[in-house]
Amino acid sequence: VRSAFHHQIDLLTADLGRMCELAGLAMERATQALLQADLLLAEQVITDHDELLGLRVDVEREVVALLALQSPVATDLRIVVSGLQNAAGAERMGALALHVAKIARRRHPDHAVPQEVSEIFAEMGRIAVQLGHSAKTAILSGDPIQAARIGDEDDAMDERHRHLFSVLMNRQWTYGVAAAIDLTLLGRFYERFADQAVEIGRRVFYQVTGEHPAS
Amino acid sequence: VRSAFHHQIDLLTADLGRMCELAGLAMERATQALLQADLLLAEQVITDHDELLGLRVDVEREVVALLALQSPVATDLRIVVSGLQNAAGAERMGALALHVAKIARRRHPDHAVPQEVSEIFAEMGRIAVQLGHSAKTAILSGDPIQAARIGDEDDAMDERHRHLFSVLMNRQWTYGVAAAIDLTLLGRFYERFADQAVEIGRRVFYQVTGEHPAS
Repeated sequence: VRSAFHHQIDLLTADLGRMCELAGLAMERATQALLQADLLLAEQVITDHDELLGLRVDVEREVVALLALQSPVATDLRIVVSGLQNAAGAERMGALALHVAKIARRRHPDHAVPQEVSEIFAEMGRIAVQLGHSAKTAILSGDPIQAARIGDEDDAMDERHRHLFSVLMNRQWTYGVAAAIDLTLLGRFYERFADQAVEIGRRVFYQVTGEHPAS
Repeated sequence: VRSAFHHQIDLLTADLGRMCELAGLAMERATQALLQADLLLAEQVITDHDELLGLRVDVEREVVALLALQSPVATDLRIVVSGLQNAAGAERMGALALHVAKIARRRHPDHAVPQEVSEIFAEMGRIAVQLGHSAKTAILSGDPIQAARIGDEDDAMDERHRHLFSVLMNRQWTYGVAAAIDLTLLGRFYERFADQAVEIGRRVFYQVTGEHPAS
């Protein structure tokens, strides 16, 4: 029989997993909206962000209740504190997907992403979805090896991000400054999404092992 | 006579104020390094960031100790939880200043910012320094009116940021795509710095009043 405390921790963990899932789904849809100039899908990502914001508020309430009523210490306390930070990270991931969707909406019916770099964004989108999934799995499983692996997935994102800049800086770039600005911001949004997933992985690693992962 | 708990809260608050001060100082120097292509100053901002990272670790340790040993509830608990979040925000502000310094370093001995937009960045730098100062004052004073006012200062940043984009998107822009990419990222760094200060203000407002400020 699990204690009331552990029951509350289970609820908190489930909410955090759900937040990562929603953030990954938001980035999946935002990428599709971006690449297909799909206005309705962009609007949906923007509207759906409210669910993530609501979960963040729920998690903060759960954390404060846990701290006030259960006075956890040691590992249990670390799980609660790290849960609060992971909620902030997952909300931020969703906000970055929202920013991608807003650029798709702003350029509609045009495509914000020229054909020449659309494959780079398709890949960054796939990596982001994978990172959202990995963050969720790390939180739900509490598996430190799985959590530490998120950093490797982020390396693939950094590599795509550098490639994007090399294409933009190439003298043959013919899409002008306005497109370059959009693409610079978009690239940054995907990169930051990945960074937040890595941070979640690092916190899961720490809360389980008490050590910081090698970076 | 103040209790041991309140003594620990005072130490936590002082550390958070110091973090905001360091973040503001970092952005002041990063802006100067950027506008004057000052490599040594850019290097200093990059090196000095370690102090902020160290304070973040200190604050997390203080928060965990406070929660474990004092089991605060109600307003006291809110102050501790909000302190943890403010430490993350202030560290992020410093990281954004670091990013500005890194762009200055990467372009040295060239100027990353063309003369035509240097006044915009000088202003964004001044507003950022003011925001760092306001975040520090809000944390140290716990004054909700002062805390809520940070949002107004952010409006000035948003206005400069929009102006920057209008200059970049202008057909007369002659500095090419590479400069536009740098300036897009730089603009984003200042804007995010301001957003973090606003969030600190909102949390101070909430921790003191139990209400969220009108946004």
